[in-house]
Amino acid sequence: MSFNSFGHLFRITTWGESHGPAIGVVIDGCPPGLPLTEADIQPFLDRRRPGQSRFTTQRQEPDTVEILSGTYEGATTGTPISLLIRNLDQRSRDYAEIADRYRPGHADWAYEAKYGRRDPRGGGRASARETACRVAAGAVARKVLGPGVRISAFLVELGGDPIDRARLDPAEIDRNPFFCPDAAAALRWETLIDSARKAGSSLGAIVEVVAEGVPAGWGSPVYRKLDSELAHAMMGINAVKGVEIGDGFAAARLKGEDHADRMRPGPPGAGPVFLSNHAGGTAGGISTGQPVVVRLALKPTSSILTPVETINRDGEAVEIATRGRHDPCVGIRAAPVAEAMMALVLADAMLMHRAQVG
Amino acid sequence: MSFNSFGHLFRITTWGESHGPAIGVVIDGCPPGLPLTEADIQPFLDRRRPGQSRFTTQRQEPDTVEILSGTYEGATTGTPISLLIRNLDQRSRDYAEIADRYRPGHADWAYEAKYGRRDPRGGGRASARETACRVAAGAVARKVLGPGVRISAFLVELGGDPIDRARLDPAEIDRNPFFCPDAAAALRWETLIDSARKAGSSLGAIVEVVAEGVPAGWGSPVYRKLDSELAHAMMGINAVKGVEIGDGFAAARLKGEDHADRMRPGPPGAGPVFLSNHAGGTAGGISTGQPVVVRLALKPTSSILTPVETINRDGEAVEIATRGRHDPCVGIRAAPVAEAMMALVLADAMLMHRAQVG
Amino acid sequence: MSFNSFGHLFRITTWGESHGPAIGVVIDGCPPGLPLTEADIQPFLDRRRPGQSRFTTQRQEPDTVEILSGTYEGATTGTPISLLIRNLDQRSRDYAEIADRYRPGHADWAYEAKYGRRDPRGGGRASARETACRVAAGAVARKVLGPGVRISAFLVELGGDPIDRARLDPAEIDRNPFFCPDAAAALRWETLIDSARKAGSSLGAIVEVVAEGVPAGWGSPVYRKLDSELAHAMMGINAVKGVEIGDGFAAARLKGEDHADRMRPGPPGAGPVFLSNHAGGTAGGISTGQPVVVRLALKPTSSILTPVETINRDGEAVEIATRGRHDPCVGIRAAPVAEAMMALVLADAMLMHRAQVG
Amino acid sequence: MSFNSFGHLFRITTWGESHGPAIGVVIDGCPPGLPLTEADIQPFLDRRRPGQSRFTTQRQEPDTVEILSGTYEGATTGTPISLLIRNLDQRSRDYAEIADRYRPGHADWAYEAKYGRRDPRGGGRASARETACRVAAGAVARKVLGPGVRISAFLVELGGDPIDRARLDPAEIDRNPFFCPDAAAALRWETLIDSARKAGSSLGAIVEVVAEGVPAGWGSPVYRKLDSELAHAMMGINAVKGVEIGDGFAAARLKGEDHADRMRPGPPGAGPVFLSNHAGGTAGGISTGQPVVVRLALKPTSSILTPVETINRDGEAVEIATRGRHDPCVGIRAAPVAEAMMALVLADAMLMHRAQVG
Repeated sequence: MSFNSFGHLFRITTWGESHGPAIGVVIDGCPPGLPLTEADIQPFLDRRRPGQSRFTTQRQEPDTVEILSGTYEGATTGTPISLLIRNLDQRSRDYAEIADRYRPGHADWAYEAKYGRRDPRGGGRASARETACRVAAGAVARKVLGPGVRISAFLVELGGDPIDRARLDPAEIDRNPFFCPDAAAALRWETLIDSARKAGSSLGAIVEVVAEGVPAGWGSPVYRKLDSELAHAMMGINAVKGVEIGDGFAAARLKGEDHADRMRPGPPGAGPVFLSNHAGGTAGGISTGQPVVVRLALKPTSSILTPVETINRDGEAVEIATRGRHDPCVGIRAAPVAEAMMALVLADAMLMHRAQVG
Repeated sequence: MSFNSFGHLFRITTWGESHGPAIGVVIDGCPPGLPLTEADIQPFLDRRRPGQSRFTTQRQEPDTVEILSGTYEGATTGTPISLLIRNLDQRSRDYAEIADRYRPGHADWAYEAKYGRRDPRGGGRASARETACRVAAGAVARKVLGPGVRISAFLVELGGDPIDRARLDPAEIDRNPFFCPDAAAALRWETLIDSARKAGSSLGAIVEVVAEGVPAGWGSPVYRKLDSELAHAMMGINAVKGVEIGDGFAAARLKGEDHADRMRPGPPGAGPVFLSNHAGGTAGGISTGQPVVVRLALKPTSSILTPVETINRDGEAVEIATRGRHDPCVGIRAAPVAEAMMALVLADAMLMHRAQVG
Repeated sequence: MSFNSFGHLFRITTWGESHGPAIGVVIDGCPPGLPLTEADIQPFLDRRRPGQSRFTTQRQEPDTVEILSGTYEGATTGTPISLLIRNLDQRSRDYAEIADRYRPGHADWAYEAKYGRRDPRGGGRASARETACRVAAGAVARKVLGPGVRISAFLVELGGDPIDRARLDPAEIDRNPFFCPDAAAALRWETLIDSARKAGSSLGAIVEVVAEGVPAGWGSPVYRKLDSELAHAMMGINAVKGVEIGDGFAAARLKGEDHADRMRPGPPGAGPVFLSNHAGGTAGGISTGQPVVVRLALKPTSSILTPVETINRDGEAVEIATRGRHDPCVGIRAAPVAEAMMALVLADAMLMHRAQVG
Repeated sequence: MSFNSFGHLFRITTWGESHGPAIGVVIDGCPPGLPLTEADIQPFLDRRRPGQSRFTTQRQEPDTVEILSGTYEGATTGTPISLLIRNLDQRSRDYAEIADRYRPGHADWAYEAKYGRRDPRGGGRASARETACRVAAGAVARKVLGPGVRISAFLVELGGDPIDRARLDPAEIDRNPFFCPDAAAALRWETLIDSARKAGSSLGAIVEVVAEGVPAGWGSPVYRKLDSELAHAMMGINAVKGVEIGDGFAAARLKGEDHADRMRPGPPGAGPVFLSNHAGGTAGGISTGQPVVVRLALKPTSSILTPVETINRDGEAVEIATRGRHDPCVGIRAAPVAEAMMALVLADAMLMHRAQVG
């Protein structure tokens, strides 16, 4: 069943709770001979790291990664790569109240309904802290993919305020704390987040992930479609409630002649040139050579300061307001996580394709 | 890798092409002692069957299911259940042209880029005909779930025309050929489809699937979230390009206090009563006891009569218009398929939960 | 869990009972472009087929294979290959008695303890008839491996009477009904089987399988060792109770200096020449380039005419003597099955190696 | 593929090299609510720990286990349990020579043939040190099984010298450094090992593992037979070259009437009483309620002081004698490892049975 594993051939297993001594990930199936040190992974963790601006949680975690196995003389050996990230800034006292009360919108009640018990400190295993492991593993997946595949995620909407596609500038993404490719929108979002934060409220967001340089032929019908694998990967990120590929939901409003991506002959030896990319880079579950385009919708953080109705472990009616540190918009830090999941899906698809077709 | 298998403990493997002698599915892991004959499966196949109205493909397939193994004296034995459905109405001559040209929006080019070859007759393995196997397996999954879990799918939008939620009447769903729960919308859609069909065009749709009676505790963090499994299942249905759970993409526009589903004490011995269901029945990837609500967006069929630009196997610029029989809106027949995928995911989650928690 | 599937990337799923309408296998993950028709598979089924001499069961089954999917114009397409073998010579009346009584040494009691019910006709799913599906799938696996890998199984002992290794002649294997490579032993075994059969008794056997031409590097540490995969594959054949690789149990009696296979430089560009093959072709779970050598011990058929003590479904003390048709030594027909399992393990290992290392 | 994972529902993933900073295991799928602290695991590691007598390697490793996740307030939560064991006594200078030369009988050449490179320090990933992780995970598996299932492993033969079954006394097993249940044999083995050690040689051994209290019904036909899972588990232990269940290879020399285990009515409400246990506790791949009996043959350690012929990385003919510390008979410390693998297989089978049959 592998509840905590993702991927088939390039396969990760993550472990750890928000307030335990550490979190970590074991990467199995990595090809040998890839140069790999902590310096290849740390920059990706740094992008996701909390506490870097006033717009994310104030928990201070350096998220320093240690490679415990799987490399020798600075390169992978083909054996499992164990990565460890220590938890340093736990404040478990913040969580005394929620040990007894279920926060609406959080996993508290569901975990207890399932397991009969849970680790309430910082959300335990349900904490978004787990996504640091995905990001670390994603850095290794990028090594497998090589520089030919370029993956980028950015926010296209925050708190209901979309970017202007005409202003989309990839260079802008890393110039603001929102992974926002539209400088004007980034300014507006600053205000949006600030007022939400002050009101003890929270906001949702929509993230777009694009992978360029994916060759045609990756992914597999019928139940391993690239679309399915991506949907699985993205829907599993904390707070994601919707996933779409290419035109996605908008495709349901198009006519057949407006949606199908027409083809013209490409350069000699290459595949076709497509005249549009409504499909988002896949057909029949297989990559077409076009950019793979995925969008994910993230709900607003359920940790809010307004007291809301809930029940406690004795089944009594109570109220709860979330104290503790949290992100006013989890969608922001989801961008590097979405990139990582794209990398994991693609690295796996690459190995799967190589296995069957050679 | 199991390209053609779905599920972990309740696991199906499908096989067959659109124009081969038959298609089929092997169901592995089914609990023993469940009453099961062809009569339990056939009604579900009949709902999905083509050629029942002028609004779907005119291919005439009785889709009669045969149980070849796994039952004894009318009940399951715990051994694999093999189901066979013969193909009777192939007209492969219709597909001569597409053997040489890649239909835009179809899997033709991608299959060939991957495998170097493909079976062009009726789309081969990429045909939506494969979904008959899902529907047959879904009928067995319903047996596993028992009558306490009730699954229903219906169209909430067709060709950009949404139903009126205020008029939603479950009893209406089976009274029109569109699985439409709004009688007024069903009338409008008749016209929409008719004109699309006459114009040689095609339309998209949005399907909603609801499962009631799912107990709290099914599904598993982190990479086996119920949300992830549902997204994987639904995104793998032919033509689906978007999946959302609960409020889905709309959740990204809500504030935290408006999205989190508040709880009040339920009846003695039961879980809480929720005051809303924005989450769509899951929290932290685990069912909460509320109805599980999923929506899927289906693109318009890529088989259209208008000639469009493409290339042929020699890489030359040509045009193609799809002849052969096809659905003007594949979204319609996707409703019983979506129900089946919901049943498959839930039966699997039920067994997975039982395994770990007992 | 996949109770009825074997393999990771080259993956088979079998189904069917001894006295159902048919048995079959679905092969998933086969590379595309391999020439494949029924004529490639049938000869292997013919070698395993019962009723060809007085030394095996008299059940008459032509075991004719039909390819239902996965090929186009005589070659594989990369989609699942469904193979069907009809059951033609069921005589279910023979099995009335065993529906109510548990045959010692058979799976009757265990199946019922597990599932609460069972199909008693011909052993149901526990019948060795299932191995026909393995043999059919093994023929496809050989196509994946290509002619460079040569697999041969033969009996090295029957009823406690071993062959003389000095007389081992591969050409002899197909000249007698025992897959015996020693002509003198084959003559003796004829007498052994005849007297066992007349006494209503049965005999055990030891089968050796050798794969030549396996390149160095297949198989994977730690839990996918080639040794483990072979042990899994062979121990799962009906009636097998022991598996050993290379020297096997005899290795436990050797000293380190006598067991380790010494190496000398091989031809330019090739691996080493080994001076012995005590290891049976693997080291650290990975193939070394030497022949892979496996032996399996098969218990005597539990179907015997002598009445023996047992209980019935009401838990009462009764006796039972097996009527119906059966093999006096199941070890004989296990030879082609063991070859098939070797082919399945190696084809899978080949694809797994290609996936990770390219 | 999951090269480094074992099990289906109770699933472990191990990582780490002999001379890295640590080794570890992640346990996924563990039921919640089981009391678990380091004190439940450490005693099992202590039994396997090296350096406790002159008969095992002199490497000094305390093998102290740390639980990094998956428990809360002293009990499991259902989330992954990460166990870490630090490596403290690496002496990598011992391994300079073998970085360049392939030790016969070791995995050196095979790893390099597969991956193109390897970590030579202490055998890297191929080191038996990995089995500490199995033992740690096995301790958790025992918690899942509960006290009703009792697992014991002991040596029945060392260096070709078997125990006397008439003298087998379970209480003796922990009174000597050989896990030998026959006090007289233990004395003889002391001499055997001493002389092998002095001669720079090494010895093989046969280990028997018995699990009592396993209820009828665990394990699953066809490809998840309990026999197959056990064979897979045991054959994957370092140095194992043969596995047998019940009578094993000796069964091949019995007649049907002498092998089939006869049944008599058992106590009311219980299964049958069996009059013998030739089958070793399984039938049709399913447990029968009798003790599960498995034996494994371990080759002599390939690390010997006698110089033997081999080649180096340049393909030249050289000689090598193993320096460094090693076990003169790896079979000894395999006993606790075999117990652990039995526990892992049974815990997995228990959960698998519960999933399907409830």
